[in-house]
Amino acid sequence: MSVHPDVTPLEFLLGSWKGSGHGEYPTIESFDYFEEVSFVAPPGKPFVVYTQKTRHADDDRPLHTETGYLRPVGDGTVEMTLAQPTGVVEIHVGTVSAGRLELTTHQVGLTPTAKEVTSVRRELAVDGDTLTYDLAMAAVGRPITHHLHAVLHRI
Amino acid sequence: MSVHPDVTPLEFLLGSWKGSGHGEYPTIESFDYFEEVSFVAPPGKPFVVYTQKTRHADDDRPLHTETGYLRPVGDGTVEMTLAQPTGVVEIHVGTVSAGRLELTTHQVGLTPTAKEVTSVRRELAVDGDTLTYDLAMAAVGRPITHHLHAVLHRI
Repeated sequence: MSVHPDVTPLEFLLGSWKGSGHGEYPTIESFDYFEEVSFVAPPGKPFVVYTQKTRHADDDRPLHTETGYLRPVGDGTVEMTLAQPTGVVEIHVGTVSAGRLELTTHQVGLTPTAKEVTSVRRELAVDGDTLTYDLAMAAVGRPITHHLHAVLHRI
Repeated sequence: MSVHPDVTPLEFLLGSWKGSGHGEYPTIESFDYFEEVSFVAPPGKPFVVYTQKTRHADDDRPLHTETGYLRPVGDGTVEMTLAQPTGVVEIHVGTVSAGRLELTTHQVGLTPTAKEVTSVRRELAVDGDTLTYDLAMAAVGRPITHHLHAVLHRI
């Protein structure tokens, strides 16, 4: 079985990516990180499995990780479900066009002990074998503010 | 690095499991399935990564898959974040005691095109190398109703 036809609009993302990024937010010290990301399309299924992890650039300690699914639902619309070990789940809705995916929070769910996250905006662009993304976030009482920028390369 | 001390209450789940189950719900035809589950504790991190997939017992076609994280937060309380490719995310809170984990929905998030799920209750018990679980669900307008029962073996 090959890639499900629904997944075609996301084919530019499929594979494994590796690179580095910079994080900032008004409530924390800025930091640099290494990142590995994969987008896998299980044969015949109408979705893409997303996994991500980052490590601190200074001492290589594990930082963030998250996992979830992208599902195109027609007319260039993509839905995303996402789970994080920090007690956060996210539902995103967005648009995909040639080499570009933009996602905005539809709903956030939090465990009782999670830090408050109210909204996240993700923009990913692929040009050849380079993936660039930016993430802005409204969290811990702050309005939507730029948080992450990274450049990854296909491996 | 070894398993994070916070993860100790969940050590009985760690590893890979394989077996079969039976599904039922008032709105669907009953079915039998094969299942693979893994619980992995990344070294030094205070959570467990959960992945699951099932295949139909009749023709081996892929059925459900889900992924997320378990995080013990003290006093036998466990929080779970979960993402599904069907457009559903779940936040669970539950309790862990010797060989037993019970989780009840705290919040459900849905993409605009997802089927309505309002509540899920999960009970997992490990006895030696056997994991048994039951899942009950309130969905598509039905009250909480038994949906899945499976018996898995450590591989």
